[in-house]
Amino acid sequence: MIEQTLLEQLVEALRVMPGIGRKSAQRIAHQLLQRNRDGAKHLSRIMADAMERIGHCQRCRTYTENKLCHLCENTRRDDSTICVVENPSDVDSIEETNYRGRYFVLLGHLSPLDGIGPDDIGLNEFKLLLDNEDLKEVILATSSTVEGEATAHFISEMVKASGKEVTRIAHGVPMGGELEYVNSLTIAHALDGRKAI
Amino acid sequence: MIEQTLLEQLVEALRVMPGIGRKSAQRIAHQLLQRNRDGAKHLSRIMADAMERIGHCQRCRTYTENKLCHLCENTRRDDSTICVVENPSDVDSIEETNYRGRYFVLLGHLSPLDGIGPDDIGLNEFKLLLDNEDLKEVILATSSTVEGEATAHFISEMVKASGKEVTRIAHGVPMGGELEYVNSLTIAHALDGRKAI
Repeated sequence: MIEQTLLEQLVEALRVMPGIGRKSAQRIAHQLLQRNRDGAKHLSRIMADAMERIGHCQRCRTYTENKLCHLCENTRRDDSTICVVENPSDVDSIEETNYRGRYFVLLGHLSPLDGIGPDDIGLNEFKLLLDNEDLKEVILATSSTVEGEATAHFISEMVKASGKEVTRIAHGVPMGGELEYVNSLTIAHALDGRKAI
Repeated sequence: MIEQTLLEQLVEALRVMPGIGRKSAQRIAHQLLQRNRDGAKHLSRIMADAMERIGHCQRCRTYTENKLCHLCENTRRDDSTICVVENPSDVDSIEETNYRGRYFVLLGHLSPLDGIGPDDIGLNEFKLLLDNEDLKEVILATSSTVEGEATAHFISEMVKASGKEVTRIAHGVPMGGELEYVNSLTIAHALDGRKAI
Protein backbone atom coordinates (compact mmCIF):
# COMPACT_ATOMS: atom_id res chain seq x y z
CA MET A 1 0.00 0.00 0.00
CA ILE A 2 1.18 3.50 -0.83
CA GLU A 3 1.55 5.77 2.18
CA GLN A 4 -0.98 8.59 2.48
CA THR A 5 0.27 11.93 1.22
CA LEU A 6 0.08 14.92 3.57
CA LEU A 7 -2.69 16.37 1.39
CA GLU A 8 -4.71 13.16 1.72
CA GLN A 9 -4.19 13.25 5.49
CA LEU A 10 -5.43 16.86 5.55
CA VAL A 11 -8.56 15.96 3.55
CA GLU A 12 -9.20 13.07 5.93
CA ALA A 13 -8.67 15.23 9.03
CA LEU A 14 -10.99 17.99 7.76
CA ARG A 15 -13.86 15.48 7.76
CA VAL A 16 -13.94 15.65 11.57
CA MET A 17 -16.10 18.75 11.07
CA PRO A 18 -19.86 18.16 10.93
CA GLY A 19 -21.37 18.66 7.48
CA ILE A 20 -18.02 18.34 5.67
CA GLY A 21 -17.93 15.34 3.34
CA ARG A 22 -15.11 14.11 1.15
CA LYS A 23 -15.74 16.51 -1.74
CA SER A 24 -16.05 19.59 0.50
CA ALA A 25 -12.90 18.58 2.38
CA GLN A 26 -10.97 18.31 -0.89
CA ARG A 27 -12.21 21.72 -2.00
CA ILE A 28 -11.32 23.31 1.34
CA ALA A 29 -7.84 21.74 1.39
CA HIS A 30 -7.02 22.89 -2.14
CA GLN A 31 -8.38 26.39 -1.63
CA LEU A 32 -6.48 26.90 1.61
CA LEU A 33 -3.22 25.65 0.08
CA GLN A 34 -3.67 27.82 -2.98
CA ARG A 35 -5.07 31.02 -1.53
CA ASN A 36 -4.79 31.33 2.21
CA ARG A 37 -2.02 29.44 3.95
CA ASP A 38 -1.64 32.16 6.56
CA GLY A 39 -5.36 32.04 7.38
CA ALA A 40 -5.17 28.26 7.71
CA LYS A 41 -2.12 28.46 10.00
CA HIS A 42 -3.97 30.99 12.14
CA LEU A 43 -7.01 28.67 12.28
CA SER A 44 -4.76 25.78 13.25
CA ARG A 45 -3.28 27.72 16.19
CA ILE A 46 -6.65 29.01 17.44
CA MET A 47 -8.19 25.54 17.13
CA ALA A 48 -5.46 23.84 19.16
CA ASP A 49 -5.66 26.59 21.77
CA ALA A 50 -9.47 26.45 21.97
CA MET A 51 -9.62 22.64 22.27
CA GLU A 52 -7.02 22.74 25.03
CA ARG A 53 -8.20 25.71 27.06
CA ILE A 54 -11.98 26.08 26.67
CA GLY A 55 -13.80 24.58 29.64
CA HIS A 56 -17.08 25.38 31.35
CA CYS A 57 -18.12 28.45 33.34
CA GLN A 58 -18.26 27.58 37.03
CA ARG A 59 -21.54 29.42 37.39
CA CYS A 60 -23.63 28.87 34.24
CA ARG A 61 -21.72 25.97 32.63
CA THR A 62 -21.41 27.57 29.18
CA TYR A 63 -18.09 27.46 27.33
CA THR A 64 -15.32 29.74 28.49
CA GLU A 65 -11.54 29.70 28.78
CA ASN A 66 -11.82 31.48 32.17
CA LYS A 67 -13.36 30.54 35.52
CA LEU A 68 -16.45 32.59 34.73
CA CYS A 69 -17.81 33.34 31.24
CA HIS A 70 -18.03 36.95 30.05
CA LEU A 71 -21.80 36.98 30.65
CA CYS A 72 -21.51 35.81 34.26
CA GLU A 73 -18.69 38.31 34.85
CA ASN A 74 -20.80 41.16 33.48
CA THR A 75 -22.17 42.99 36.53
CA ARG A 76 -24.74 44.86 34.46
CA ARG A 77 -26.81 41.79 33.63
CA ASP A 78 -30.17 41.37 35.33
CA ASP A 79 -29.76 38.99 38.31
CA SER A 80 -33.52 38.63 38.77
CA THR A 81 -33.97 36.32 35.76
CA ILE A 82 -32.22 33.12 34.77
CA CYS A 83 -32.82 31.35 31.47
CA VAL A 84 -32.23 27.58 31.36
CA VAL A 85 -31.06 26.15 28.03
CA GLU A 86 -29.70 22.80 26.86
CA ASN A 87 -26.58 23.85 24.96
CA PRO A 88 -24.01 26.66 24.90
CA SER A 89 -25.09 27.44 21.33
CA ASP A 90 -28.60 28.21 22.66
CA VAL A 91 -27.05 31.04 24.70
CA ASP A 92 -25.78 32.62 21.47
CA SER A 93 -29.26 32.35 19.92
CA ILE A 94 -30.93 34.05 22.90
CA GLU A 95 -28.20 36.71 23.06
CA GLU A 96 -29.39 37.85 19.62
CA THR A 97 -32.66 38.97 21.28
CA ASN A 98 -32.90 41.75 23.88
CA TYR A 99 -32.79 39.32 26.85
CA ARG A 100 -30.27 40.61 29.38
CA GLY A 101 -30.71 38.21 32.32
CA ARG A 102 -28.54 35.30 33.41
CA TYR A 103 -28.23 31.80 31.92
CA PHE A 104 -27.85 28.25 33.07
CA VAL A 105 -26.66 25.65 30.56
CA LEU A 106 -27.66 22.03 31.21
CA LEU A 107 -25.22 20.58 28.64
CA GLY A 108 -27.86 18.01 27.71
CA HIS A 109 -31.29 16.93 28.87
CA LEU A 110 -32.72 14.31 31.20
CA SER A 111 -32.66 10.90 29.55
CA PRO A 112 -33.19 8.09 32.08
CA LEU A 113 -32.77 5.40 29.40
CA ASP A 114 -29.24 6.70 28.68
CA GLY A 115 -28.56 6.98 32.41
CA ILE A 116 -28.58 10.80 32.33
CA GLY A 117 -30.13 12.00 35.59
CA PRO A 118 -30.50 15.42 37.30
CA ASP A 119 -26.90 15.55 38.54
CA ASP A 120 -25.55 14.90 35.03
CA ILE A 121 -27.23 18.06 33.74
CA GLY A 122 -25.95 20.16 36.63
CA LEU A 123 -29.17 20.44 38.61
CA ASN A 124 -27.28 20.14 41.92
CA GLU A 125 -25.37 23.32 40.94
CA PHE A 126 -28.58 24.90 39.67
CA LYS A 127 -30.16 24.36 43.11
CA LEU A 128 -27.50 26.61 44.65
CA LEU A 129 -28.40 29.39 42.18
CA LEU A 130 -32.05 29.08 43.22
CA ASP A 131 -31.07 30.14 46.74
CA ASN A 132 -29.97 33.55 45.43
CA GLU A 133 -32.27 36.17 46.95
CA ASP A 134 -32.20 38.43 43.91
CA LEU A 135 -33.61 35.71 41.64
CA LYS A 136 -37.29 36.24 40.81
CA GLU A 137 -37.98 34.19 37.66
CA VAL A 138 -36.64 31.10 35.92
CA ILE A 139 -37.35 30.91 32.17
CA LEU A 140 -37.25 27.38 30.75
CA ALA A 141 -35.94 27.43 27.19
CA THR A 142 -35.16 23.75 26.65
CA SER A 143 -36.07 22.24 23.27
CA SER A 144 -39.66 21.34 22.58
CA THR A 145 -38.73 17.68 22.08
CA VAL A 146 -40.03 14.94 24.37
CA GLU A 147 -36.78 15.01 26.41
CA GLY A 148 -36.70 18.82 26.46
CA GLU A 149 -40.29 18.99 27.72
CA ALA A 150 -39.64 16.34 30.38
CA THR A 151 -36.53 18.23 31.51
CA ALA A 152 -38.50 21.50 31.65
CA HIS A 153 -41.21 19.80 33.71
CA PHE A 154 -38.66 18.38 36.16
CA ILE A 155 -36.94 21.74 36.64
CA SER A 156 -40.27 23.60 36.98
CA GLU A 157 -41.10 21.39 39.97
CA MET A 158 -37.72 22.23 41.54
CA VAL A 159 -38.26 25.95 41.03
CA LYS A 160 -41.83 25.90 42.37
CA ALA A 161 -40.58 24.10 45.47
CA SER A 162 -38.15 26.98 46.04
CA GLY A 163 -41.02 29.50 45.83
CA LYS A 164 -39.72 31.37 42.75
CA GLU A 165 -41.67 32.06 39.57
CA VAL A 166 -41.08 29.69 36.63
CA THR A 167 -42.09 30.26 32.97
CA ARG A 168 -41.76 28.36 29.70
CA ILE A 169 -40.95 30.08 26.38
CA ALA A 170 -43.94 30.27 24.02
CA HIS A 171 -44.49 27.68 21.34
CA GLY A 172 -46.41 28.64 18.23
CA VAL A 173 -46.16 29.57 14.58
CA PRO A 174 -42.68 30.90 13.72
CA MET A 175 -42.52 34.50 12.49
CA GLY A 176 -42.74 34.59 8.70
CA GLY A 177 -44.10 31.03 8.72
CA GLU A 178 -47.08 30.19 6.54
CA LEU A 179 -49.76 28.11 8.26
CA GLU A 180 -49.80 25.43 5.59
CA TYR A 181 -46.16 24.53 6.25
CA VAL A 182 -46.49 24.38 10.05
CA ASN A 183 -47.28 21.01 11.64
CA SER A 184 -50.57 20.49 13.46
CA LEU A 185 -49.03 20.11 16.94
CA THR A 186 -47.46 23.57 16.57
CA ILE A 187 -50.77 25.02 15.41
CA ALA A 188 -52.52 23.41 18.39
CA HIS A 189 -49.93 25.08 20.70
CA ALA A 190 -50.42 28.39 18.87
CA LEU A 191 -54.20 28.19 19.42
CA ASP A 192 -53.81 27.26 23.09
CA GLY A 193 -51.43 30.16 23.59
CA ARG A 194 -53.59 32.78 21.82
CA LYS A 195 -53.62 36.32 23.20
CA ALA A 196 -56.17 39.13 23.11
CA ILE A 197 -55.11 41.93 20.72
CA MET B 1 -15.24 47.12 23.85
CA ILE B 2 -15.30 43.63 25.34
CA GLU B 3 -12.41 41.43 24.23
CA GLN B 4 -13.30 38.52 21.95
CA THR B 5 -13.65 35.19 23.74
CA LEU B 6 -11.58 32.25 22.52
CA LEU B 7 -14.76 30.64 21.18
CA GLU B 8 -15.58 33.78 19.16
CA GLN B 9 -12.02 33.79 17.81
CA LEU B 10 -12.43 30.14 16.79
CA VAL B 11 -15.73 30.86 14.98
CA GLU B 12 -14.05 33.79 13.21
CA ALA B 13 -11.00 31.72 12.23
CA LEU B 14 -13.13 28.84 10.88
CA ARG B 15 -14.60 31.21 8.31
CA VAL B 16 -11.30 31.16 6.42
CA MET B 17 -12.65 27.96 4.83
CA PRO B 18 -14.60 28.40 1.58
CA GLY B 19 -18.34 27.76 1.94
CA ILE B 20 -18.32 28.17 5.73
CA GLY B 21 -20.44 31.11 6.87
CA ARG B 22 -21.05 32.39 10.38
CA LYS B 23 -23.79 29.90 11.28
CA SER B 24 -21.86 26.88 9.99
CA ALA B 25 -18.73 28.06 11.81
CA GLN B 26 -20.67 28.32 15.08
CA ARG B 27 -22.11 24.84 14.60
CA ILE B 28 -18.69 23.37 13.81
CA ALA B 29 -17.04 25.06 16.79
CA HIS B 30 -19.69 23.86 19.24
CA GLN B 31 -19.75 20.33 17.88
CA LEU B 32 -15.99 19.97 17.99
CA LEU B 33 -15.80 21.30 21.55
CA GLN B 34 -18.60 19.04 22.68
CA ARG B 35 -17.89 15.82 20.84
CA ASN B 36 -14.46 15.62 19.28
CA ARG B 37 -11.69 17.68 20.83
CA ASP B 38 -9.10 15.02 19.97
CA GLY B 39 -10.19 15.02 16.33
CA ALA B 40 -9.95 18.80 16.24
CA LYS B 41 -6.47 18.79 17.80
CA HIS B 42 -5.39 16.24 15.20
CA LEU B 43 -6.83 18.44 12.43
CA SER B 44 -5.00 21.44 13.86
CA ARG B 45 -1.63 19.62 13.78
CA ILE B 46 -2.12 18.23 10.26
CA MET B 47 -3.27 21.62 8.97
CA ALA B 48 -0.24 23.48 10.35
CA ASP B 49 2.07 20.78 8.97
CA ALA B 50 0.39 20.79 5.54
CA MET B 51 0.44 24.59 5.17
CA GLU B 52 4.12 24.64 6.11
CA ARG B 53 5.44 21.68 4.16
CA ILE B 54 3.29 21.15 1.07
CA GLY B 55 4.95 22.63 -2.00
CA HIS B 56 4.91 21.73 -5.68
CA CYS B 57 6.28 18.66 -7.49
CA GLN B 58 9.42 19.60 -9.42
CA ARG B 59 8.23 17.64 -12.42
CA CYS B 60 4.44 18.02 -12.76
CA ARG B 61 3.84 20.97 -10.36
CA THR B 62 1.02 19.31 -8.39
CA TYR B 63 0.98 19.54 -4.58
CA THR B 64 3.44 17.39 -2.67
CA GLU B 65 5.51 17.59 0.49
CA ASN B 66 8.40 15.88 -1.34
CA LYS B 67 10.56 16.82 -4.34
CA LEU B 68 8.47 14.63 -6.61
CA CYS B 69 4.79 13.74 -6.09
CA HIS B 70 3.79 10.10 -5.63
CA LEU B 71 2.51 9.93 -9.23
CA CYS B 72 5.77 11.20 -10.73
CA GLU B 73 7.73 8.82 -8.50
CA ASN B 74 5.63 5.87 -9.62
CA THR B 75 7.72 4.05 -12.26
CA ARG B 76 4.72 2.03 -13.45
CA ARG B 77 2.88 4.98 -14.96
CA ASP B 78 2.74 5.31 -18.73
CA ASP B 79 5.45 7.77 -19.86
CA SER B 80 4.03 8.00 -23.39
CA THR B 81 1.09 10.22 -22.38
CA ILE B 82 0.93 13.47 -20.45
CA CYS B 83 -2.31 15.14 -19.42
CA VAL B 84 -2.25 18.92 -18.94
CA VAL B 85 -4.67 20.32 -16.31
CA GLU B 86 -5.17 23.70 -14.66
CA ASN B 87 -5.30 22.74 -10.98
CA PRO B 88 -4.00 20.03 -8.63
CA SER B 89 -7.62 19.12 -7.83
CA ASP B 90 -8.12 18.25 -11.51
CA VAL B 91 -5.48 15.53 -11.09
CA ASP B 92 -7.64 13.93 -8.37
CA SER B 93 -10.68 14.02 -10.69
CA ILE B 94 -8.81 12.34 -13.54
CA GLU B 95 -7.25 9.79 -11.16
CA GLU B 96 -10.79 8.52 -10.54
CA THR B 97 -10.86 7.30 -14.17
CA ASN B 98 -8.60 4.58 -15.56
CA TYR B 99 -6.04 7.07 -16.96
CA ARG B 100 -2.56 5.94 -15.96
CA GLY B 101 -0.30 8.37 -17.82
CA ARG B 102 1.60 11.40 -16.51
CA TYR B 103 0.31 14.87 -15.60
CA PHE B 104 1.37 18.47 -15.91
CA VAL B 105 -0.35 21.06 -13.71
CA LEU B 106 -0.39 24.65 -15.00
CA LEU B 107 -1.54 26.14 -11.64
CA GLY B 108 -3.74 28.58 -13.56
CA HIS B 109 -4.39 29.54 -17.16
CA LEU B 110 -3.14 32.15 -19.62
CA SER B 111 -4.66 35.54 -18.84
CA PRO B 112 -2.82 38.37 -20.59
CA LEU B 113 -5.07 41.01 -18.97
CA ASP B 114 -3.95 39.84 -15.51
CA GLY B 115 -0.34 39.64 -16.70
CA ILE B 116 -0.27 35.84 -16.61
CA GLY B 117 1.85 34.64 -19.49
CA PRO B 118 3.30 31.28 -20.59
CA ASP B 119 6.15 31.29 -18.04
CA ASP B 120 3.70 31.92 -15.16
CA ILE B 121 1.88 28.68 -15.93
CA GLY B 122 5.12 26.68 -16.17
CA LEU B 123 5.28 26.31 -19.92
CA ASN B 124 9.08 26.77 -19.88
CA GLU B 125 9.27 23.64 -17.68
CA PHE B 126 6.67 21.92 -19.85
CA LYS B 127 8.89 22.46 -22.90
CA LEU B 128 11.61 20.36 -21.26
CA LEU B 129 9.13 17.49 -20.78
CA LEU B 130 8.27 17.70 -24.50
CA ASP B 131 11.85 16.76 -25.33
CA ASN B 132 11.38 13.37 -23.65
CA GLU B 133 11.70 10.69 -26.34
CA ASP B 134 9.14 8.37 -24.74
CA LEU B 135 6.38 10.98 -24.93
CA LYS B 136 3.90 10.27 -27.74
CA GLU B 137 0.73 12.23 -26.86
CA VAL B 138 -0.26 15.34 -24.92
CA ILE B 139 -3.89 15.41 -23.73
CA LEU B 140 -5.23 18.92 -23.04
CA ALA B 141 -7.72 18.84 -20.16
CA THR B 142 -7.95 22.54 -19.31
CA SER B 143 -11.42 23.94 -18.50
CA SER B 144 -13.80 24.68 -21.34
CA THR B 145 -13.90 28.37 -20.38
CA VAL B 146 -12.62 31.10 -22.68
CA GLU B 147 -9.27 31.20 -20.82
CA GLY B 148 -9.05 27.40 -20.67
CA GLU B 149 -9.66 27.12 -24.41
CA ALA B 150 -7.11 29.84 -25.20
CA THR B 151 -4.56 28.10 -22.99
CA ALA B 152 -5.27 24.76 -24.70
CA HIS B 153 -4.83 26.40 -28.12
CA PHE B 154 -1.51 27.96 -27.10
CA ILE B 155 -0.14 24.68 -25.76
CA SER B 156 -1.39 22.71 -28.79
CA GLU B 157 0.76 24.96 -31.01
CA MET B 158 3.80 24.27 -28.80
CA VAL B 159 3.23 20.51 -28.93
CA LYS B 160 2.67 20.47 -32.69
CA ALA B 161 5.94 22.39 -33.16
CA SER B 162 7.70 19.62 -31.25
CA GLY B 163 6.24 16.98 -33.58
CA LYS B 164 4.24 15.09 -30.90
CA GLU B 165 0.53 14.26 -31.05
CA VAL B 166 -1.84 16.58 -29.18
CA THR B 167 -5.50 15.90 -28.28
CA ARG B 168 -8.29 17.73 -26.44
CA ILE B 169 -10.75 15.97 -24.09
CA ALA B 170 -14.25 15.61 -25.56
CA HIS B 171 -16.95 18.16 -24.82
CA GLY B 172 -20.58 17.08 -24.94
CA VAL B 173 -23.61 16.08 -22.94
CA PRO B 174 -22.62 14.85 -19.44
CA MET B 175 -23.47 11.24 -18.61
CA GLY B 176 -26.89 11.08 -16.95
CA GLY B 177 -27.66 14.57 -18.24
CA GLU B 178 -31.04 15.27 -19.79
CA LEU B 179 -30.92 17.27 -23.00
CA GLU B 180 -33.39 19.91 -21.81
CA TYR B 181 -31.05 20.94 -18.98
CA VAL B 182 -27.92 21.17 -21.13
CA ASN B 183 -27.03 24.53 -22.69
CA SER B 184 -27.08 24.95 -26.46
CA LEU B 185 -23.31 25.45 -26.81
CA THR B 186 -22.74 22.07 -25.18
CA ILE B 187 -25.31 20.46 -27.47
CA ALA B 188 -23.61 22.06 -30.49
CA HIS B 189 -20.29 20.54 -29.32
CA ALA B 190 -22.00 17.18 -28.77
CA LEU B 191 -23.36 17.23 -32.33
CA ASP B 192 -20.01 18.24 -33.81
CA GLY B 193 -18.29 15.45 -31.93
CA ARG B 194 -20.80 12.71 -32.86
CA LYS B 195 -19.48 9.22 -33.51
CA ALA B 196 -20.68 6.29 -35.63
CA ILE B 197 -22.15 3.51 -33.48
